[in-house]
Amino acid sequence: MSAIVELSIFPMDKGESVSAYVAGVLDIIRNSGVAYELGPMGTCLEGDWEDVSTVVNKCFEHVRADSSRVYMTMKVDWRAGRKNGLRGKMDSVNAKLD
Amino acid sequence: MSAIVELSIFPMDKGESVSAYVAGVLDIIRNSGVAYELGPMGTCLEGDWEDVSTVVNKCFEHVRADSSRVYMTMKVDWRAGRKNGLRGKMDSVNAKLD
Amino acid sequence: MSAIVELSIFPMDKGESVSAYVAGVLDIIRNSGVAYELGPMGTCLEGDWEDVSTVVNKCFEHVRADSSRVYMTMKVDWRAGRKNGLRGKMDSVNAKLD
Amino acid sequence: MSAIVELSIFPMDKGESVSAYVAGVLDIIRNSGVAYELGPMGTCLEGDWEDVSTVVNKCFEHVRADSSRVYMTMKVDWRAGRKNGLRGKMDSVNAKLD
Repeated sequence: MSAIVELSIFPMDKGESVSAYVAGVLDIIRNSGVAYELGPMGTCLEGDWEDVSTVVNKCFEHVRADSSRVYMTMKVDWRAGRKNGLRGKMDSVNAKLD
Repeated sequence: MSAIVELSIFPMDKGESVSAYVAGVLDIIRNSGVAYELGPMGTCLEGDWEDVSTVVNKCFEHVRADSSRVYMTMKVDWRAGRKNGLRGKMDSVNAKLD
Repeated sequence: MSAIVELSIFPMDKGESVSAYVAGVLDIIRNSGVAYELGPMGTCLEGDWEDVSTVVNKCFEHVRADSSRVYMTMKVDWRAGRKNGLRGKMDSVNAKLD
Repeated sequence: MSAIVELSIFPMDKGESVSAYVAGVLDIIRNSGVAYELGPMGTCLEGDWEDVSTVVNKCFEHVRADSSRVYMTMKVDWRAGRKNGLRGKMDSVNAKLD
């Protein structure tokens, strides 16, 4: 459960509206069993690095199957022994605000 | 309201626990008046580019005032005429899922 | 000279070939007077934060003037007192390789 | 040869000087056989997605073996049929500048 990965992926050859592709990616993530949270600029996945990597690869394969150019960005925050980080990171920040 | 900016910022010289700094940044964002949403890997701001840029600058100044090295990443999605994008982008994806 | 900013920016509504827009951005950077280095996935700028920010804003204005949707990513590494970081960071890594 | 991946990775628990870790990562990349180019803010790798992914995983394993928290960012630009993209992308931009 130590890795949190924020994933943004879209085709560059389909014009400016890419939400259908984002929905296809999200469907893969929903069915993967890893914890996730959809955000305005990307989706965060949480799990063991190997599991999360595998899901990211499936998402990438899905988008490139139908595209000639794909752009993807990832941010990874891995922390040994962390559990429930998707909520925990935000709770930790909120607890420091009055 | 056309710009959505995802911001992640932390000091590199304060060890691995950086939530106090993230909380300081979030406090600036809360008081700025721009729409925002805290996420596990960054905070999304929405507004006119000029307004959002100004807030990002304040956040950066806040963290570097107390640090010798600062790391910041931003993703910007600007779309002409978009309104209520923080919710709208996610609603658009969810509407395409069954 | 303390900030290094890696900038990637492209329109999302112009199809998959975006090098003409990247060239327009690079032209602004070349004429700005800040130190820079073009790379395969972005251009690195170095200078005072205020100067570099100003150039980034000009680049963003240039691309959005002609587009309905623009995607931009930035990574910022600010380090107090650093000089000649574009070369220095790479030299520091290379010196640690045999 | 279609994928270009820009990789930045560093430990968050080792203080602000991380070039020794970057050198360890670069050593793995050098020995991997994929094309690469070191930059001030990250290293670009080029190859088939599967090959490049494998190298990224080795780099990540290397840094986390010795750390309790690791931060990694990746940008991926995949384009069907592209060859020699590390030089080609920059040549394409430069050709459009006078």
